[in-house]
Amino acid sequence: MAPELSRKMGRLVKSENTAIGAYEAAGRERTSIAAQLSDWGEATDDDAISDVSDKLGVMMAEMGEQEDVFAANLEDYRGVLKQIRNMESSVQPSRDQRQKVTDEIAKLKYKDPTSTRLVTLEHELVRAEAQNLVAEAQLSNISRQKLKEAYDIHLAAVIERAEKQAILARHARRLLNFIDDSPVVPGDSRKAYEHEADARKVLDDAENDMRAWQSSVEPIVSASSAAEGLPDRDSDGLTTGSGEVVEGVSFTEGTSKSVKRAEASGSGALQTEAEPIPA
Amino acid sequence: MAPELSRKMGRLVKSENTAIGAYEAAGRERTSIAAQLSDWGEATDDDAISDVSDKLGVMMAEMGEQEDVFAANLEDYRGVLKQIRNMESSVQPSRDQRQKVTDEIAKLKYKDPTSTRLVTLEHELVRAEAQNLVAEAQLSNISRQKLKEAYDIHLAAVIERAEKQAILARHARRLLNFIDDSPVVPGDSRKAYEHEADARKVLDDAENDMRAWQSSVEPIVSASSAAEGLPDRDSDGLTTGSGEVVEGVSFTEGTSKSVKRAEASGSGALQTEAEPIPA
Repeated sequence: MAPELSRKMGRLVKSENTAIGAYEAAGRERTSIAAQLSDWGEATDDDAISDVSDKLGVMMAEMGEQEDVFAANLEDYRGVLKQIRNMESSVQPSRDQRQKVTDEIAKLKYKDPTSTRLVTLEHELVRAEAQNLVAEAQLSNISRQKLKEAYDIHLAAVIERAEKQAILARHARRLLNFIDDSPVVPGDSRKAYEHEADARKVLDDAENDMRAWQSSVEPIVSASSAAEGLPDRDSDGLTTGSGEVVEGVSFTEGTSKSVKRAEASGSGALQTEAEPIPA
Repeated sequence: MAPELSRKMGRLVKSENTAIGAYEAAGRERTSIAAQLSDWGEATDDDAISDVSDKLGVMMAEMGEQEDVFAANLEDYRGVLKQIRNMESSVQPSRDQRQKVTDEIAKLKYKDPTSTRLVTLEHELVRAEAQNLVAEAQLSNISRQKLKEAYDIHLAAVIERAEKQAILARHARRLLNFIDDSPVVPGDSRKAYEHEADARKVLDDAENDMRAWQSSVEPIVSASSAAEGLPDRDSDGLTTGSGEVVEGVSFTEGTSKSVKRAEASGSGALQTEAEPIPA
Protein backbone atom coordinates (compact mmCIF):
# COMPACT_ATOMS: atom_id res chain seq x y z
CA MET A 1 0.00 0.00 0.00
CA ALA A 2 1.29 3.43 -0.94
CA PRO A 3 2.14 5.70 2.01
CA GLU A 4 -0.38 8.23 0.79
CA LEU A 5 -3.40 6.43 -0.61
CA SER A 6 -4.31 9.11 -3.13
CA ARG A 7 -0.80 9.74 -4.48
CA LYS A 8 -1.07 7.63 -7.64
CA MET A 9 -4.48 8.90 -8.68
CA GLY A 10 -3.40 12.43 -7.83
CA ARG A 11 -0.49 12.08 -10.23
CA LEU A 12 -2.75 10.64 -12.93
CA VAL A 13 -5.21 13.52 -12.57
CA LYS A 14 -2.31 15.93 -12.97
CA SER A 15 -0.91 14.17 -16.05
CA GLU A 16 -4.37 14.17 -17.58
CA ASN A 17 -4.38 17.92 -17.21
CA THR A 18 -1.24 18.09 -19.35
CA ALA A 19 -2.78 15.75 -21.94
CA ILE A 20 -5.93 17.88 -22.11
CA GLY A 21 -3.75 20.97 -22.56
CA ALA A 22 -2.06 19.28 -25.52
CA TYR A 23 -5.43 18.56 -27.17
CA GLU A 24 -6.54 22.13 -26.58
CA ALA A 25 -3.32 23.37 -28.18
CA ALA A 26 -3.82 21.04 -31.15
CA GLY A 27 -7.40 22.26 -31.60
CA ARG A 28 -6.39 25.91 -31.37
CA GLU A 29 -3.57 25.41 -33.86
CA ARG A 30 -5.77 23.44 -36.28
CA THR A 31 -8.35 26.24 -36.31
CA SER A 32 -5.68 28.88 -36.87
CA ILE A 33 -4.06 26.85 -39.68
CA ALA A 34 -7.48 26.48 -41.32
CA ALA A 35 -7.69 30.28 -41.61
CA GLN A 36 -4.10 30.44 -42.89
CA LEU A 37 -4.90 27.86 -45.57
CA SER A 38 -7.86 29.89 -46.79
CA ASP A 39 -5.66 33.03 -46.77
CA TRP A 40 -2.93 31.36 -48.74
CA GLY A 41 -5.40 30.03 -51.29
CA GLU A 42 -6.87 33.46 -51.88
CA ALA A 43 -3.41 34.95 -52.43
CA THR A 44 -2.56 32.41 -55.13
CA ASP A 45 -4.97 34.17 -57.54
CA ASP A 46 -5.99 30.69 -58.68
CA ASP A 47 -9.79 30.26 -58.66
CA ALA A 48 -9.70 26.51 -58.08
CA ILE A 49 -7.12 26.64 -55.30
CA SER A 50 -8.83 29.64 -53.75
CA ASP A 51 -12.29 28.03 -53.57
CA VAL A 52 -11.13 24.59 -52.52
CA SER A 53 -8.70 25.84 -49.88
CA ASP A 54 -11.42 28.12 -48.53
CA LYS A 55 -13.90 25.24 -48.16
CA LEU A 56 -11.15 22.96 -46.90
CA GLY A 57 -10.41 25.64 -44.33
CA VAL A 58 -14.00 25.49 -43.11
CA MET A 59 -13.78 21.71 -42.71
CA MET A 60 -10.39 21.84 -40.97
CA ALA A 61 -11.67 24.52 -38.58
CA GLU A 62 -14.52 22.17 -37.65
CA MET A 63 -11.96 19.42 -37.04
CA GLY A 64 -10.15 21.79 -34.70
CA GLU A 65 -13.45 22.47 -32.98
CA GLN A 66 -13.96 18.72 -32.50
CA GLU A 67 -10.50 18.49 -30.95
CA ASP A 68 -11.67 21.13 -28.50
CA VAL A 69 -14.93 19.30 -27.74
CA PHE A 70 -12.80 16.22 -27.08
CA ALA A 71 -10.65 18.18 -24.62
CA ALA A 72 -13.81 19.42 -22.85
CA ASN A 73 -15.12 15.85 -22.54
CA LEU A 74 -11.77 14.72 -21.15
CA GLU A 75 -12.12 17.52 -18.59
CA ASP A 76 -15.40 15.90 -17.46
CA TYR A 77 -13.70 12.51 -17.24
CA ARG A 78 -10.91 14.08 -15.24
CA GLY A 79 -13.49 15.53 -12.85
CA VAL A 80 -14.78 12.02 -12.17
CA LEU A 81 -11.25 10.73 -11.53
CA LYS A 82 -10.83 13.54 -9.02
CA GLN A 83 -13.75 12.07 -7.07
CA ILE A 84 -11.77 8.84 -6.71
CA ARG A 85 -8.72 10.81 -5.59
CA ASN A 86 -10.78 12.82 -3.09
CA MET A 87 -12.33 9.65 -1.71
CA GLU A 88 -8.88 8.13 -1.31
CA SER A 89 -7.69 11.25 0.53
CA SER A 90 -10.70 11.13 2.82
CA VAL A 91 -10.23 7.46 3.72
CA GLN A 92 -6.60 7.94 4.73
CA PRO A 93 -7.35 9.63 8.14
CA SER A 94 -9.78 6.85 9.02
CA ARG A 95 -7.05 4.25 8.46
CA ASP A 96 -4.55 6.36 10.39
CA GLN A 97 -6.96 6.80 13.28
CA ARG A 98 -7.64 3.07 13.62
CA GLN A 99 -3.91 2.40 13.51
CA LYS A 100 -3.19 5.10 16.09
CA VAL A 101 -5.68 3.68 18.63
CA THR A 102 -4.45 0.14 18.00
CA ASP A 103 -0.85 1.27 18.66
CA GLU A 104 -1.85 3.17 21.79
CA ILE A 105 -3.61 0.15 23.23
CA ALA A 106 -0.60 -2.07 22.54
CA LYS A 107 1.74 0.43 24.18
CA LEU A 108 -0.47 0.86 27.25
CA LYS A 109 -0.96 -2.91 27.67
CA TYR A 110 2.82 -3.21 27.89
CA LYS A 111 3.45 -0.20 30.12
CA ASP A 112 0.38 -0.24 32.39
CA PRO A 113 -1.82 -3.31 31.78
CA THR A 114 -4.27 -2.38 34.54
CA SER A 115 -4.89 1.19 33.40
CA THR A 116 -8.59 2.14 33.28
CA ARG A 117 -7.83 4.13 30.13
CA LEU A 118 -7.61 0.78 28.33
CA VAL A 119 -11.39 0.38 28.54
CA THR A 120 -11.90 3.84 27.03
CA LEU A 121 -9.40 3.04 24.29
CA GLU A 122 -11.05 -0.30 23.51
CA HIS A 123 -14.34 1.55 23.03
CA GLU A 124 -12.59 4.07 20.88
CA LEU A 125 -11.08 1.31 18.76
CA VAL A 126 -14.50 -0.23 18.14
CA ARG A 127 -15.75 3.13 16.93
CA ALA A 128 -12.63 3.68 14.80
CA GLU A 129 -12.97 0.24 13.27
CA ALA A 130 -16.62 0.80 12.48
CA GLN A 131 -15.86 4.09 10.88
CA ASN A 132 -13.00 2.61 8.88
CA LEU A 133 -15.15 -0.32 7.79
CA VAL A 134 -17.62 2.13 6.29
CA ALA A 135 -14.85 4.20 4.78
CA GLU A 136 -13.29 1.16 3.09
CA ALA A 137 -16.67 0.07 1.72
CA GLN A 138 -17.26 3.56 0.40
CA LEU A 139 -13.79 3.63 -1.14
CA SER A 140 -14.43 0.33 -2.88
CA ASN A 141 -17.86 1.44 -4.10
CA ILE A 142 -16.73 4.85 -5.31
CA SER A 143 -13.54 3.53 -6.93
CA ARG A 144 -15.44 0.94 -8.94
CA GLN A 145 -18.35 3.19 -9.87
CA LYS A 146 -16.23 6.18 -10.73
CA LEU A 147 -13.63 4.22 -12.68
CA LYS A 148 -16.45 2.92 -14.88
CA GLU A 149 -18.08 6.31 -15.14
CA ALA A 150 -14.79 8.06 -15.95
CA TYR A 151 -13.75 5.71 -18.74
CA ASP A 152 -17.31 5.56 -20.04
CA ILE A 153 -17.00 9.32 -20.63
CA HIS A 154 -13.42 9.13 -21.92
CA LEU A 155 -14.03 6.30 -24.38
CA ALA A 156 -17.33 7.73 -25.61
CA ALA A 157 -15.45 10.98 -26.25
CA VAL A 158 -12.78 9.13 -28.24
CA ILE A 159 -15.51 7.55 -30.36
CA GLU A 160 -17.36 10.83 -30.84
CA ARG A 161 -14.21 12.64 -31.98
CA ALA A 162 -13.30 9.71 -34.22
CA GLU A 163 -16.67 9.45 -35.92
CA LYS A 164 -17.15 13.18 -36.39
CA GLN A 165 -13.63 13.79 -37.69
CA ALA A 166 -13.98 10.82 -40.06
CA ILE A 167 -17.22 12.34 -41.43
CA LEU A 168 -15.45 15.67 -41.97
CA ALA A 169 -12.36 14.08 -43.51
CA ARG A 170 -14.32 11.94 -45.97
CA HIS A 171 -16.28 14.93 -47.22
CA ALA A 172 -13.15 17.08 -47.30
CA ARG A 173 -11.46 14.54 -49.56
CA ARG A 174 -14.23 15.09 -52.14
CA LEU A 175 -13.12 18.74 -52.38
CA LEU A 176 -9.63 17.74 -53.51
CA ASN A 177 -11.02 16.17 -56.66
CA PHE A 178 -12.35 19.57 -57.74
CA ILE A 179 -8.80 20.77 -58.36
CA ASP A 180 -7.76 19.87 -61.89
CA ASP A 181 -4.05 19.24 -61.53
CA SER A 182 -3.29 18.30 -65.12
CA PRO A 183 -0.08 20.18 -65.94
CA VAL A 184 -0.42 23.37 -68.00
CA VAL A 185 1.97 24.32 -70.79
CA PRO A 186 3.86 27.55 -70.10
CA GLY A 187 1.78 30.47 -71.36
CA ASP A 188 -1.48 28.53 -71.54
CA SER A 189 -4.27 29.49 -69.19
CA ARG A 190 -6.28 27.09 -67.07
CA LYS A 191 -9.76 25.93 -67.93
CA ALA A 192 -12.24 27.97 -65.89
CA TYR A 193 -13.06 26.58 -62.44
CA GLU A 194 -16.58 25.15 -62.46
CA HIS A 195 -16.94 23.42 -59.10
CA GLU A 196 -18.11 26.22 -56.82
CA ALA A 197 -21.59 24.74 -56.47
CA ASP A 198 -20.17 21.24 -55.99
CA ALA A 199 -17.86 22.51 -53.26
CA ARG A 200 -20.71 24.27 -51.51
CA LYS A 201 -22.68 21.02 -51.71
CA VAL A 202 -19.83 19.22 -49.94
CA LEU A 203 -20.02 21.69 -47.05
CA ASP A 204 -23.81 21.21 -46.86
CA ASP A 205 -23.48 17.44 -46.91
CA ALA A 206 -20.87 17.53 -44.16
CA GLU A 207 -23.00 19.87 -42.08
CA ASN A 208 -26.03 17.60 -42.46
CA ASP A 209 -24.05 14.50 -41.54
CA MET A 210 -22.60 16.26 -38.51
CA ARG A 211 -26.05 17.32 -37.37
CA ALA A 212 -27.44 13.81 -37.91
CA TRP A 213 -24.61 12.19 -35.94
CA GLN A 214 -25.74 10.19 -32.93
CA SER A 215 -23.73 8.23 -30.44
CA SER A 216 -23.94 4.51 -31.11
CA VAL A 217 -21.94 3.30 -28.12
CA GLU A 218 -23.33 0.47 -26.01
CA PRO A 219 -24.23 1.82 -22.58
CA ILE A 220 -22.01 0.64 -19.74
CA VAL A 221 -23.88 -1.62 -17.32
CA SER A 222 -23.88 -0.12 -13.85
CA ALA A 223 -25.20 -1.76 -10.72
CA SER A 224 -26.12 1.67 -9.44
CA SER A 225 -29.11 1.54 -11.77
CA ALA A 226 -30.28 -1.61 -9.93
CA ALA A 227 -30.15 0.23 -6.62
CA GLU A 228 -32.60 2.67 -8.13
CA GLY A 229 -35.00 -0.18 -8.80
CA LEU A 230 -34.34 -0.76 -12.46
CA PRO A 231 -35.28 -4.34 -13.34
CA ASP A 232 -32.79 -5.29 -16.10
CA ARG A 233 -29.90 -5.95 -13.73
CA ASP A 234 -27.83 -9.13 -14.01
CA SER A 235 -28.62 -10.46 -10.57
CA ASP A 236 -25.52 -11.70 -8.81
CA GLY A 237 -26.81 -11.80 -5.27
CA LEU A 238 -25.22 -8.53 -4.17
CA THR A 239 -27.97 -6.18 -5.09
CA THR A 240 -30.68 -6.78 -2.51
CA GLY A 241 -30.92 -3.67 -0.46
CA SER A 242 -27.17 -3.17 -0.43
CA GLY A 243 -27.49 0.24 -2.02
CA GLU A 244 -29.70 1.36 0.85
CA VAL A 245 -27.49 -0.16 3.49
CA VAL A 246 -24.52 1.96 2.48
CA GLU A 247 -26.64 5.05 2.27
CA GLY A 248 -28.27 4.22 5.59
CA VAL A 249 -25.21 3.68 7.78
CA SER A 250 -26.27 6.28 10.25
CA PHE A 251 -23.41 5.72 12.67
CA THR A 252 -21.12 7.59 10.34
CA GLU A 253 -23.13 10.72 10.99
CA GLY A 254 -21.06 13.52 12.36
CA THR A 255 -17.90 11.43 12.57
CA SER A 256 -15.81 13.32 10.11
CA LYS A 257 -16.04 15.74 7.28
CA SER A 258 -14.39 13.25 5.00
CA VAL A 259 -16.96 10.52 5.50
CA LYS A 260 -19.74 12.99 4.90
CA ARG A 261 -18.11 14.12 1.70
CA ALA A 262 -17.79 10.49 0.70
CA GLU A 263 -21.46 9.91 1.31
CA ALA A 264 -22.34 12.91 -0.75
CA SER A 265 -20.27 11.81 -3.67
CA GLY A 266 -21.60 8.28 -3.23
CA SER A 267 -25.22 9.21 -3.70
CA GLY A 268 -24.21 11.61 -6.44
CA ALA A 269 -22.69 8.68 -8.23
CA LEU A 270 -25.91 6.73 -8.02
CA GLN A 271 -27.84 9.49 -9.62
CA THR A 272 -25.31 10.19 -12.31
CA GLU A 273 -24.99 6.57 -13.32
CA ALA A 274 -28.75 6.04 -13.37
CA GLU A 275 -28.94 8.36 -16.35
CA PRO A 276 -28.89 6.13 -19.41
CA ILE A 277 -26.21 6.88 -21.98
CA PRO A 278 -27.95 7.84 -25.24
CA ALA A 279 -27.79 4.73 -27.40
CA MET B 1 -0.04 39.70 -54.26
CA ALA B 2 2.05 39.31 -51.12
CA PRO B 3 5.46 40.98 -51.21
CA GLU B 4 7.12 37.66 -50.57
CA LEU B 5 5.27 34.96 -52.49
CA SER B 6 6.08 32.17 -50.06
CA ARG B 7 5.31 34.07 -46.85
CA LYS B 8 1.82 32.67 -46.22
CA MET B 9 2.71 29.05 -46.93
CA GLY B 10 5.89 29.48 -44.90
CA ARG B 11 3.81 30.56 -41.92
CA LEU B 12 1.40 27.67 -42.40
CA VAL B 13 4.26 25.16 -42.51
CA LYS B 14 5.55 26.64 -39.26
CA SER B 15 2.15 26.53 -37.52
CA GLU B 16 1.72 22.95 -38.64
CA ASN B 17 4.96 22.17 -36.84
CA THR B 18 3.41 23.46 -33.61
CA ALA B 19 0.24 21.43 -34.21
CA ILE B 20 2.27 18.28 -34.79
CA GLY B 21 4.18 18.98 -31.59
CA ALA B 22 0.87 19.15 -29.71
CA TYR B 23 -0.20 15.76 -31.06
CA GLU B 24 3.16 14.28 -30.15
CA ALA B 25 2.78 15.66 -26.62
CA ALA B 26 -0.75 14.26 -26.38
CA GLY B 27 0.44 10.84 -27.53
CA ARG B 28 3.35 10.81 -25.11
CA GLU B 29 1.13 11.86 -22.21
CA ARG B 30 -1.55 9.31 -23.13
CA THR B 31 1.02 6.50 -23.08
CA SER B 32 2.41 7.66 -19.76
CA ILE B 33 -1.06 7.94 -18.21
CA ALA B 34 -1.85 4.42 -19.41
CA ALA B 35 1.04 3.12 -17.29
CA GLN B 36 -0.09 5.25 -14.34
CA LEU B 37 -3.59 3.82 -14.59
CA SER B 38 -2.28 0.29 -14.46
CA ASP B 39 -0.06 1.24 -11.50
CA TRP B 40 -2.94 2.80 -9.62
CA GLY B 41 -5.16 -0.22 -10.24
CA GLU B 42 -2.56 -2.59 -8.87
CA ALA B 43 -2.18 -0.49 -5.73
CA THR B 44 -5.91 -0.61 -4.96
CA ASP B 45 -5.60 -4.30 -3.93
CA ASP B 46 -8.90 -4.83 -5.74
CA ASP B 47 -8.71 -7.75 -8.20
CA ALA B 48 -11.38 -6.41 -10.53
CA ILE B 49 -9.98 -2.87 -10.66
CA SER B 50 -6.44 -4.18 -10.94
CA ASP B 51 -7.14 -6.45 -13.92
CA VAL B 52 -9.44 -4.07 -15.77
CA SER B 53 -7.23 -1.01 -15.28
CA ASP B 54 -4.23 -3.04 -16.43
CA LYS B 55 -5.98 -4.10 -19.66
CA LEU B 56 -7.44 -0.63 -20.07
CA GLY B 57 -3.89 0.67 -19.74
CA VAL B 58 -2.79 -1.53 -22.64
CA MET B 59 -5.61 -0.16 -24.81
CA MET B 60 -4.96 3.46 -23.83
CA ALA B 61 -1.25 3.05 -24.56
CA GLU B 62 -2.17 1.87 -28.05
CA MET B 63 -4.37 4.95 -28.43
CA GLY B 64 -1.37 7.08 -27.52
CA GLU B 65 0.64 5.18 -30.10
CA GLN B 66 -1.99 6.01 -32.73
CA GLU B 67 -1.76 9.67 -31.78
CA ASP B 68 1.93 9.38 -32.50
CA VAL B 69 1.37 7.66 -35.86
CA PHE B 70 -1.00 10.51 -36.69
CA ALA B 71 1.69 13.06 -35.87
CA ALA B 72 4.16 11.20 -38.10
CA ASN B 73 1.68 11.23 -40.99
CA LEU B 74 1.13 14.96 -40.50
CA GLU B 75 4.88 15.34 -40.75
CA ASP B 76 4.70 13.75 -44.22
CA TYR B 77 1.89 16.10 -45.19
CA ARG B 78 3.93 19.02 -43.93
CA GLY B 79 6.85 17.89 -46.10
CA VAL B 80 4.60 18.13 -49.16
CA LEU B 81 3.46 21.64 -48.17
CA LYS B 82 7.12 22.61 -47.94
CA GLN B 83 7.47 21.71 -51.61
CA ILE B 84 4.83 24.34 -52.41
CA ARG B 85 6.63 26.86 -50.23
CA ASN B 86 9.98 26.07 -51.89
CA MET B 87 8.44 26.41 -55.34
CA GLU B 88 7.00 29.77 -54.37
CA SER B 89 10.39 30.93 -53.11
CA SER B 90 12.03 29.82 -56.33
CA VAL B 91 9.53 31.64 -58.57
CA GLN B 92 10.01 34.94 -56.78
CA PRO B 93 13.45 35.79 -58.35
CA SER B 94 12.06 35.06 -61.81
CA ARG B 95 9.25 37.58 -61.24
CA ASP B 96 11.70 40.08 -59.79
CA GLN B 97 14.07 39.65 -62.74
CA ARG B 98 11.35 40.28 -65.32
CA GLN B 99 10.22 43.35 -63.42
CA LYS B 100 13.80 44.61 -63.11
CA VAL B 101 14.45 44.42 -66.87
CA THR B 102 11.06 45.99 -67.66
CA ASP B 103 11.85 48.90 -65.33
CA GLU B 104 15.33 49.33 -66.80
CA ILE B 105 13.94 49.54 -70.33
CA ALA B 106 11.33 52.12 -69.31
CA LYS B 107 13.98 54.22 -67.58
CA LEU B 108 16.39 54.06 -70.53
CA LYS B 109 13.64 54.86 -73.08
CA TYR B 110 12.99 58.05 -71.12
CA LYS B 111 16.61 59.04 -70.51
CA ASP B 112 18.33 57.88 -73.72
CA PRO B 113 15.80 56.59 -76.28
CA THR B 114 18.46 55.93 -78.94
CA SER B 115 20.79 53.87 -76.72
CA THR B 116 22.00 50.65 -78.32
CA ARG B 117 21.70 48.99 -74.92
CA LEU B 118 17.93 49.00 -75.47
CA VAL B 119 18.25 46.20 -78.02
CA THR B 120 20.26 44.11 -75.59
CA LEU B 121 17.70 44.78 -72.86
CA GLU B 122 14.77 43.87 -75.10
CA HIS B 123 16.45 40.53 -75.79
CA GLU B 124 17.02 40.08 -72.10
CA LEU B 125 13.36 40.81 -71.41
CA VAL B 126 12.25 38.15 -73.89
CA ARG B 127 14.45 35.64 -72.07
CA ALA B 128 13.23 36.80 -68.67
CA GLU B 129 9.61 36.55 -69.78
CA ALA B 130 10.14 33.07 -71.18
CA GLN B 131 11.74 31.94 -67.97
CA ASN B 132 9.00 33.49 -65.88
CA LEU B 133 6.31 31.93 -68.07
CA VAL B 134 7.77 28.52 -67.31
CA ALA B 135 8.18 29.37 -63.65
CA GLU B 136 4.55 30.46 -63.33
CA ALA B 137 3.33 27.30 -65.10
CA GLN B 138 5.47 25.20 -62.77
CA LEU B 139 4.15 27.10 -59.76
CA SER B 140 0.57 26.48 -60.87
CA ASN B 141 1.22 22.80 -61.56
CA ILE B 142 3.09 22.18 -58.33
CA SER B 143 0.66 24.17 -56.17
CA ARG B 144 -2.31 22.23 -57.46
CA GLN B 145 -0.65 18.82 -57.42
CA LYS B 146 0.97 19.27 -54.03
CA LEU B 147 -2.10 20.78 -52.37
CA LYS B 148 -4.05 17.67 -53.40
CA GLU B 149 -1.25 15.36 -52.36
CA ALA B 150 -0.77 17.08 -49.00
CA TYR B 151 -4.42 16.99 -47.98
CA ASP B 152 -4.81 13.50 -49.36
CA ILE B 153 -2.18 12.46 -46.80
CA HIS B 154 -3.58 14.65 -44.01
CA LEU B 155 -7.20 13.56 -44.41
CA ALA B 156 -6.32 9.89 -44.83
CA ALA B 157 -4.35 10.21 -41.58
CA VAL B 158 -7.36 11.73 -39.80
CA ILE B 159 -9.48 8.80 -40.97
CA GLU B 160 -6.87 6.23 -39.99
CA ARG B 161 -6.54 7.65 -36.48
CA ALA B 162 -10.31 7.93 -36.18
CA GLU B 163 -11.05 4.38 -37.26
CA LYS B 164 -8.27 2.78 -35.23
CA GLN B 165 -9.04 4.72 -32.05
CA ALA B 166 -12.74 3.92 -32.44
CA ILE B 167 -11.87 0.21 -32.68
CA LEU B 168 -9.78 0.47 -29.51
CA ALA B 169 -12.38 2.51 -27.64
CA ARG B 170 -15.26 0.18 -28.46
CA HIS B 171 -13.33 -2.85 -27.22
CA ALA B 172 -12.09 -0.93 -24.18
CA ARG B 173 -15.67 -0.16 -23.21
CA ARG B 174 -16.36 -3.90 -22.96
CA LEU B 175 -13.74 -4.07 -20.19
CA LEU B 176 -15.69 -1.63 -18.03
CA ASN B 177 -18.61 -4.05 -17.78
CA PHE B 178 -16.33 -6.57 -16.05
CA ILE B 179 -16.22 -4.35 -12.96
CA ASP B 180 -19.15 -5.19 -10.72
CA ASP B 181 -19.96 -1.86 -9.12
CA SER B 182 -22.90 -2.93 -7.02
CA PRO B 183 -22.35 -1.30 -3.63
CA VAL B 184 -20.96 -3.49 -0.84
CA VAL B 185 -22.18 -3.33 2.72
CA PRO B 186 -19.47 -2.29 5.19
CA GLY B 187 -17.57 -5.37 6.33
CA ASP B 188 -18.76 -7.57 3.48
CA SER B 189 -16.23 -8.77 0.97
CA ARG B 190 -16.64 -8.63 -2.79
CA LYS B 191 -17.56 -11.60 -4.92
CA ALA B 192 -14.40 -13.01 -6.48
CA TYR B 193 -13.39 -11.46 -9.81
CA GLU B 194 -14.07 -13.91 -12.63
CA HIS B 195 -13.43 -11.96 -15.82
CA GLU B 196 -9.70 -12.40 -16.35
CA ALA B 197 -10.20 -14.63 -19.38
CA ASP B 198 -12.91 -12.32 -20.77
CA ALA B 199 -10.61 -9.33 -20.37
CA ARG B 200 -7.77 -11.11 -22.14
CA LYS B 201 -10.23 -11.97 -24.93
CA VAL B 202 -11.02 -8.25 -25.32
CA LEU B 203 -7.32 -7.50 -25.85
CA ASP B 204 -7.07 -10.30 -28.41
CA ASP B 205 -10.17 -9.09 -30.24
CA ALA B 206 -8.85 -5.53 -30.33
CA GLU B 207 -5.46 -6.72 -31.56
CA ASN B 208 -7.08 -8.77 -34.33
CA ASP B 209 -9.30 -5.89 -35.43
CA MET B 210 -6.32 -3.53 -35.46
CA ARG B 211 -4.34 -5.97 -37.56
CA ALA B 212 -7.25 -6.44 -39.96
CA TRP B 213 -7.79 -2.70 -40.38
CA GLN B 214 -7.48 -1.45 -43.94
CA SER B 215 -7.88 2.01 -45.34
CA SER B 216 -11.22 2.44 -47.09
CA VAL B 217 -10.72 5.97 -48.41
CA GLU B 218 -11.56 6.73 -52.02
CA PRO B 219 -8.37 7.55 -53.91
CA ILE B 220 -7.96 11.18 -54.95
CA VAL B 221 -8.13 11.59 -58.75
CA SER B 222 -4.92 13.11 -60.03
CA ALA B 223 -4.24 14.17 -63.60
CA SER B 224 -0.65 13.15 -63.01
CA SER B 225 -1.83 9.55 -63.39
CA ALA B 226 -3.20 10.41 -66.84
CA ALA B 227 0.20 11.76 -67.85
CA GLU B 228 1.55 8.32 -67.05
CA GLY B 229 -0.91 6.77 -69.50
CA LEU B 230 -3.51 5.47 -67.07
CA PRO B 231 -6.81 5.18 -68.93
CA ASP B 232 -9.45 5.89 -66.26
CA ARG B 233 -9.05 9.66 -66.39
CA ASP B 234 -12.04 11.98 -66.71
CA SER B 235 -11.00 13.50 -70.01
CA ASP B 236 -11.38 17.26 -69.98
CA GLY B 237 -9.27 18.16 -72.96
CA LEU B 238 -6.22 19.20 -70.95
CA THR B 239 -4.49 15.87 -70.67
CA THR B 240 -3.11 15.23 -74.14
CA GLY B 241 0.63 15.35 -73.91
CA SER B 242 0.59 18.27 -71.52
CA GLY B 243 2.57 16.37 -68.94
CA GLU B 244 5.38 15.85 -71.38
CA VAL B 245 5.38 19.43 -72.59
CA VAL B 246 6.16 20.82 -69.16
CA GLU B 247 8.82 18.24 -68.55
CA GLY B 248 10.26 18.95 -72.01
CA VAL B 249 10.70 22.72 -71.79
CA SER B 250 14.40 22.51 -72.39
CA PHE B 251 15.06 26.24 -72.36
CA THR B 252 14.82 26.25 -68.60
CA GLU B 253 17.96 24.15 -68.52
CA GLY B 254 20.74 25.79 -66.63
CA THR B 255 18.77 28.97 -66.00
CA SER B 256 18.61 28.74 -62.26
CA LYS B 257 18.95 26.32 -59.44
CA SER B 258 15.41 27.07 -58.34
CA VAL B 259 13.82 26.12 -61.64
CA LYS B 260 15.76 22.87 -61.61
CA ARG B 261 14.57 22.13 -58.13
CA ALA B 262 11.03 22.86 -59.28
CA GLU B 263 11.40 20.47 -62.17
CA ALA B 264 12.72 17.81 -59.87
CA SER B 265 9.82 18.14 -57.47
CA GLY B 266 7.47 18.27 -60.43
CA SER B 267 8.45 14.87 -61.75
CA GLY B 268 8.58 13.58 -58.19
CA ALA B 269 4.95 14.54 -57.86
CA LEU B 270 4.02 12.56 -60.92
CA GLN B 271 5.56 9.46 -59.51
CA THR B 272 4.19 9.88 -56.02
CA GLU B 273 0.66 10.58 -57.19
CA ALA B 274 0.70 7.77 -59.70
CA GLU B 275 0.88 5.32 -56.81
CA PRO B 276 -2.70 4.32 -56.09
CA ILE B 277 -3.87 4.85 -52.53
CA PRO B 278 -4.79 1.42 -51.09
CA ALA B 279 -8.57 1.20 -51.37
